[in-house]
Amino acid sequence: MRTLQVDLGERSYPIYIGSGLLARSGEFFIEHKLSVKSPVLIVTDENVAPLYLNVVETSLQNAGYRTVSVTVKAGEKSKSLEVYENLMTAAIEGGLDRRSVVVALGGGVIGDLAGFVAATYMRGVTFVQMPTTILAHDSSVGGKVAVNHRLAKNMIGAFHQPELVLYDVDSLQTLPPRDVRAGLSEMVKHGLIWDAAFAAWCREHTAELLALDPDALGYGLTQGCSVKAQVVSVDEREQGLRAILNLGHTLGHAIEATGGYGEFLHGEAISIGMAAAAKLAVNRGRAPKLYEETVALLGGYGLPTAMPGQLKADELVHAMMHDKKFKEQQMVFVLPVDIGKVEIVDDVTLEEVHRVIAELKEEEPHV
Amino acid sequence: MRTLQVDLGERSYPIYIGSGLLARSGEFFIEHKLSVKSPVLIVTDENVAPLYLNVVETSLQNAGYRTVSVTVKAGEKSKSLEVYENLMTAAIEGGLDRRSVVVALGGGVIGDLAGFVAATYMRGVTFVQMPTTILAHDSSVGGKVAVNHRLAKNMIGAFHQPELVLYDVDSLQTLPPRDVRAGLSEMVKHGLIWDAAFAAWCREHTAELLALDPDALGYGLTQGCSVKAQVVSVDEREQGLRAILNLGHTLGHAIEATGGYGEFLHGEAISIGMAAAAKLAVNRGRAPKLYEETVALLGGYGLPTAMPGQLKADELVHAMMHDKKFKEQQMVFVLPVDIGKVEIVDDVTLEEVHRVIAELKEEEPHV
Repeated sequence: MRTLQVDLGERSYPIYIGSGLLARSGEFFIEHKLSVKSPVLIVTDENVAPLYLNVVETSLQNAGYRTVSVTVKAGEKSKSLEVYENLMTAAIEGGLDRRSVVVALGGGVIGDLAGFVAATYMRGVTFVQMPTTILAHDSSVGGKVAVNHRLAKNMIGAFHQPELVLYDVDSLQTLPPRDVRAGLSEMVKHGLIWDAAFAAWCREHTAELLALDPDALGYGLTQGCSVKAQVVSVDEREQGLRAILNLGHTLGHAIEATGGYGEFLHGEAISIGMAAAAKLAVNRGRAPKLYEETVALLGGYGLPTAMPGQLKADELVHAMMHDKKFKEQQMVFVLPVDIGKVEIVDDVTLEEVHRVIAELKEEEPHV
Repeated sequence: MRTLQVDLGERSYPIYIGSGLLARSGEFFIEHKLSVKSPVLIVTDENVAPLYLNVVETSLQNAGYRTVSVTVKAGEKSKSLEVYENLMTAAIEGGLDRRSVVVALGGGVIGDLAGFVAATYMRGVTFVQMPTTILAHDSSVGGKVAVNHRLAKNMIGAFHQPELVLYDVDSLQTLPPRDVRAGLSEMVKHGLIWDAAFAAWCREHTAELLALDPDALGYGLTQGCSVKAQVVSVDEREQGLRAILNLGHTLGHAIEATGGYGEFLHGEAISIGMAAAAKLAVNRGRAPKLYEETVALLGGYGLPTAMPGQLKADELVHAMMHDKKFKEQQMVFVLPVDIGKVEIVDDVTLEEVHRVIAELKEEEPHV
């Protein structure tokens, strides 16, 4: 088992990465002194529940905890205020009190949703994450939790750090290939923004990662979490540096919103967004190989890097302007400077955005 | 103008109490360096809007701010997830960004509702309170914001401190007498829990306060806010001391929930709750005059201190068990020790609660 400490002062917490951790949930709860007298709410989805819910429930119950479980539909559409309200009802009816724990057992959607419940139930209770996807290595660090508004993604949320993260790599073995690829998209992003050596490692170990080799996965997840933890430690509430984590996200969120949540996986959308950011940087004078290497790296994972023809440029730009990153009437973009290094710019014009969308529509789809 | 500083480290903020402040809103915004480029959302209700919305809008617009205003129905029923979602829609459609300000122009309901929007829109934006009721002197200190769940009050919320509070005492002159009395209930509470001299002052100045004498009001509000600020400074997130502010609230919230939100004003419900807490303390051995003095003080303000006959004891107890203060299977009560001093106890039995409810049903209603 690897342990990574996310350093956030009094809100610091450990991420445990290893095999067989879900079956030891109760042990970790006791070790972290979580109240045995207060009911625990486990939030999971229809894909994860049949595989792991019983394992977690049994372990917690054996340790003396009373559990209440809610299984929501899989997918981004569960990140709604409606599902959020249903979870609040379950929490109240289950008798959760201020010392209770809310557990997110699942991927990023479950983490965001359950995390926002934990952040706001009785003005905030303890939160424990048990990620079951690769993508969730990203959302399990940093405490960003949210639900979507029908007009824009992640518009309603909070910062709420977990008490601990249990990352059981065994749970990744059952992921569908498309989710594996989309999850690795965020891992690659952590290389691209911060760590050229890790980006190179990601390129060299594409096959092992796609094959879910436990060693490669353990290393990659730890490195990915570590990059994110370093960035978040410096800037917990996204006043500055943390924005670099949004590489590919300005356009990526617009792709998700325009395509209808659920049409594109988050990792796929930001893959296109990262390709667009590289192209935009090249259009502004960076070396053309920056775009070529980015596309080769992402394409190696079977991730899309061309703009799907059905997405309309006007709608994408409209969605971007309703994004949280649109601030004081300026569009904020994260652009690569080199592999492993990015900058934040706020002077990208609408013309540049339209141009890069048009250029990416001309590219051959990789998948 | 009186200025009271609420001391919460980097989340400290000033409360300005005085005459004519709403018309100077823009001035205060500029002084506090709030972004002129980002739209401001003003949340208010149907009672307050015709009186003061235009004053605030005009002042902000003259200072260069673009404003978006939403007027909700007056009353506790607006503290719902449905109204909250509508405000989020207005914020998105109005183009609010991360540097935007959400203003609560109104009483405690508006403060709680708009505050929860500010706490969670894009994971938190700047919050400014402009209280227009006496009761709001309580909710404008301490950063507790929330909406109600149909099963329990204030169940969904956050801690989110305002950037500043503009308390224009002129706005209190138009309050209906019932709201004046209910608002003074929380002011009296601040004397009862912390400051015997202030409690005595409240008893001696009952007539002036009920007549909305500006001098008495200015002093009383400043003292009330000051007691709350002292308590909250010690314990921002209600880990310990802050719970003393809940004198009268355990039963008070149950009265509100059981009567149907809106039937009893908050200040009326906690007045009965404070009488009940004093009675319970006497039943446990405190001097009988503790109950008599409490009832005399509250009754002097025309506040209810007897239990209304239509409220069923079983339903009240059920509601109490779904309250946030019900923790680890124990009922937490704040009980008076003397006028100006309270203690927190967690060993009150169901029998004691039923007894005090029955006893208060036997009392003559004061109003």
